[in-house]
Amino acid sequence: MRFSKLINSLQHQTTECQQHYLAEDPEIINGASLDQAKSNQISFLEIGNSLSLKLTSTRAGAVLLPQDESLISIAKEKNIAWLVLGNPRLGFAKCLELLNPKPLPVEGIHPSAVIGKNVHLGENLSIGANVCVGQNCQISDGCIIHPGVVIYENVLLGSGTEIHANCVIHPYSNIGENCVIHSNAVIGSEGFGFIPTEKGWYKMPQTGIVLIENDVEIGCNSTIDRPAVGETRIGAGTKIDNLVQIGHGVSTGKGCAMAAQVGIAGGAKIGHGVILAGQVGVANRVKVGDGVIASSKCGVHTDIEPGQVISGFPALPNKLWLRCSANFRKLPEMARSLRELTRPMPK
Amino acid sequence: MRFSKLINSLQHQTTECQQHYLAEDPEIINGASLDQAKSNQISFLEIGNSLSLKLTSTRAGAVLLPQDESLISIAKEKNIAWLVLGNPRLGFAKCLELLNPKPLPVEGIHPSAVIGKNVHLGENLSIGANVCVGQNCQISDGCIIHPGVVIYENVLLGSGTEIHANCVIHPYSNIGENCVIHSNAVIGSEGFGFIPTEKGWYKMPQTGIVLIENDVEIGCNSTIDRPAVGETRIGAGTKIDNLVQIGHGVSTGKGCAMAAQVGIAGGAKIGHGVILAGQVGVANRVKVGDGVIASSKCGVHTDIEPGQVISGFPALPNKLWLRCSANFRKLPEMARSLRELTRPMPK
Amino acid sequence: MRFSKLINSLQHQTTECQQHYLAEDPEIINGASLDQAKSNQISFLEIGNSLSLKLTSTRAGAVLLPQDESLISIAKEKNIAWLVLGNPRLGFAKCLELLNPKPLPVEGIHPSAVIGKNVHLGENLSIGANVCVGQNCQISDGCIIHPGVVIYENVLLGSGTEIHANCVIHPYSNIGENCVIHSNAVIGSEGFGFIPTEKGWYKMPQTGIVLIENDVEIGCNSTIDRPAVGETRIGAGTKIDNLVQIGHGVSTGKGCAMAAQVGIAGGAKIGHGVILAGQVGVANRVKVGDGVIASSKCGVHTDIEPGQVISGFPALPNKLWLRCSANFRKLPEMARSLRELTRPMPK
Repeated sequence: MRFSKLINSLQHQTTECQQHYLAEDPEIINGASLDQAKSNQISFLEIGNSLSLKLTSTRAGAVLLPQDESLISIAKEKNIAWLVLGNPRLGFAKCLELLNPKPLPVEGIHPSAVIGKNVHLGENLSIGANVCVGQNCQISDGCIIHPGVVIYENVLLGSGTEIHANCVIHPYSNIGENCVIHSNAVIGSEGFGFIPTEKGWYKMPQTGIVLIENDVEIGCNSTIDRPAVGETRIGAGTKIDNLVQIGHGVSTGKGCAMAAQVGIAGGAKIGHGVILAGQVGVANRVKVGDGVIASSKCGVHTDIEPGQVISGFPALPNKLWLRCSANFRKLPEMARSLRELTRPMPK
Repeated sequence: MRFSKLINSLQHQTTECQQHYLAEDPEIINGASLDQAKSNQISFLEIGNSLSLKLTSTRAGAVLLPQDESLISIAKEKNIAWLVLGNPRLGFAKCLELLNPKPLPVEGIHPSAVIGKNVHLGENLSIGANVCVGQNCQISDGCIIHPGVVIYENVLLGSGTEIHANCVIHPYSNIGENCVIHSNAVIGSEGFGFIPTEKGWYKMPQTGIVLIENDVEIGCNSTIDRPAVGETRIGAGTKIDNLVQIGHGVSTGKGCAMAAQVGIAGGAKIGHGVILAGQVGVANRVKVGDGVIASSKCGVHTDIEPGQVISGFPALPNKLWLRCSANFRKLPEMARSLRELTRPMPK
Repeated sequence: MRFSKLINSLQHQTTECQQHYLAEDPEIINGASLDQAKSNQISFLEIGNSLSLKLTSTRAGAVLLPQDESLISIAKEKNIAWLVLGNPRLGFAKCLELLNPKPLPVEGIHPSAVIGKNVHLGENLSIGANVCVGQNCQISDGCIIHPGVVIYENVLLGSGTEIHANCVIHPYSNIGENCVIHSNAVIGSEGFGFIPTEKGWYKMPQTGIVLIENDVEIGCNSTIDRPAVGETRIGAGTKIDNLVQIGHGVSTGKGCAMAAQVGIAGGAKIGHGVILAGQVGVANRVKVGDGVIASSKCGVHTDIEPGQVISGFPALPNKLWLRCSANFRKLPEMARSLRELTRPMPK
């Protein structure tokens, strides 16, 4: 696609395009990072981006720039094609979309799919090979279900939702519109609830449901459990990475982001816009306030006030934790000083 | 189901029912937590339960109570139906079972299932669509195998065992009776054993077996590896949550519980009744004594005596760890005090 | 197999065999550890091996020994069959191979497999039941694809590669020769890239590829993501255990080993021969030098020089971390000493 056409398409999406320069209006076929890009690839820079120094040497055909005069003047000097955008990263995402249109899924139901009784099938569906759909499910318009997915009975999928290969969706799960469930994720399996008795662990039946609101993504091999009673809920627009565990009865607010290998134990309540970095753990029934950011490997055992940035295990305010960690490495030296101070005076 | 009938059924199960009051003998259709319950739902309270204060305002149709006079008198005052039980949580589990009878699985073998040569199939089996069973397997009476499960050759499933969708069971795995393997779990894959050589990692063949005793549950996306030689063994009645890794040659005792994302490295020996909370790690060949409790994110690098409660990384006795952690946050202040104490006297 | 034949076969593999003693040339059917072995099993010892003391009491039929006179003299005294090898563990691996030849996979394509348009199929393939291969894929000679695997379009598998049951391989993944992808792993799924906007998280399309070099193993339920642009690369001979997350745009060098539940965040660069123990986390864009060893649960937030051994969170040099951890448990005592030292003098 010519760069001029790309700009044109971005403008139609009301992306905040500003000044630009077409140079020889290069044909752009894909995106790349500034240091890797070739003459038929587009790249981008943000203010403060560590790759800024690469702008002088890049071979990219075109570059998306922030409103930064020094970067613009380098681009001018190089005689490279460029476009200034309010949010160049967002513009780059839209360029990648335009340059990589999703292959239209094959519409229809593969003959090997096994569809149970009393299943309501919407229009424009794509249901792949060896998919199983249990009885009493509703698969709304435009859903894409990739091969090997198993959907148990009484599941509802909202319109436009995509379920990648070999996922498993358990009974009574209710998944909203325009969600993406990545390969091998498991939604709605029985929560881990057992009662200690003299004869061993007695299973608490898990009869509640998983409710996933609209525009949620769930990563590969992640697991979201149904509770004994009530619901496990994932708020609209929440994005969950791979290998994440969401325990029974957890609820998350809207627009959260949870990186890979996060684990949230049963009954925890996560506010809106919470960000949990990789391998974070949240304990049973803890309440995490709106907008909290927990850095990687953080262990959250107590309720956290909204807006806090926390780190470490047990979790501390990030800045305190940084100072504590800096002193942790001085512990041997501190211990030695202390021994010297408390040493009995020589006679 | 009328509350009176529910009580009657509980009594048949020799659940320790004590005094009760039927009020208008409400029709109960499901369970709920005390603060969420409606008039056709049952709830429960335990002594010390944080929801106790909700008893005055609950809309539940009936409630299971512990032997506690003050709770009973509140229930009497509200004129709500109630039943006193020795273990109300256990009673609640049994109520949920009675109110949510498991759907009878479709008996028989789906025509799309692929069954290998010399497979011994028991009676009353349910084998779902697209299941593959390799040669020389034995599937005992009453097993339920959900769609998409792949069982390699020479696997033994004990009677009444349920394998959820898209699980994979590798050769020579021996799974006991009345086990539940949740969706996408992998049992008996090759352990991670490689020998460093000048030409790179050389694979140690993993020719041992996985042996899972009776009444074990394995969570979704969990993995239990077979060893080079000998066996990996999960003791009877042990319950394992989602995304747990059990390395090659590990053995666990009976009645253990392992929460999500626990990892147990090769050759570790876990005693009876051990509880490992979420994200705990146990190192190679470590011995963990009977009844040990490891709190979440604990890292166990050395043998642990029976009955210990441990926390932290490296693991410490829980009470010591709590005091150390409380002081960790004071490290910057301690370092400052120490600097002041060791500052040379002004001349 | 007679022990003499086993020795003969090892010699053909140019394994460094030294002196041996056949005793009654026992028939060996399998391997076992020294304390478990029976008279038809072979075992091995290494120098410093904790099982050395078991040599006097072992019932093994034969034992592989290191060049250690005291062990050899015990073996002689017992009149047990033995073989001295430069690397007894490696010899044991080769014995296990010889005693447990892999079952030849059924050649051919199962009639239930669904093969897309324009797929290039090599020779001597084994493609199991219910496998789906999308259009434009290339499956090279000698590949083994177990049942239930789903391969999206435009995937390349090198010759001799084995994909275990229910794995999912996403578009444009390029997997080398003689790789093993274990059950339920997901290769090439979309990386976790979202841009914060006023309307919520906006997805960055993930249009790059995953490139897995030759002789790589990927464990069960592990996930390797494709990046927005460019590639995610796993170096030749790297071995990855179960439940590992490799983020988008990560590259690893050759011959790395990553234990279970390791997580590597987007863009991290891992050198050659790096060893990451269980549950290690590596942060975004961090560079880990050649030959680094990170011990279990380590959290790597900053670049690490080649050859370092690191531990803890945040990561410290291992020896420093050991001393710091030893002092961590003395924190309550240190705090008390310090309080006493700073207590105002009594008047």
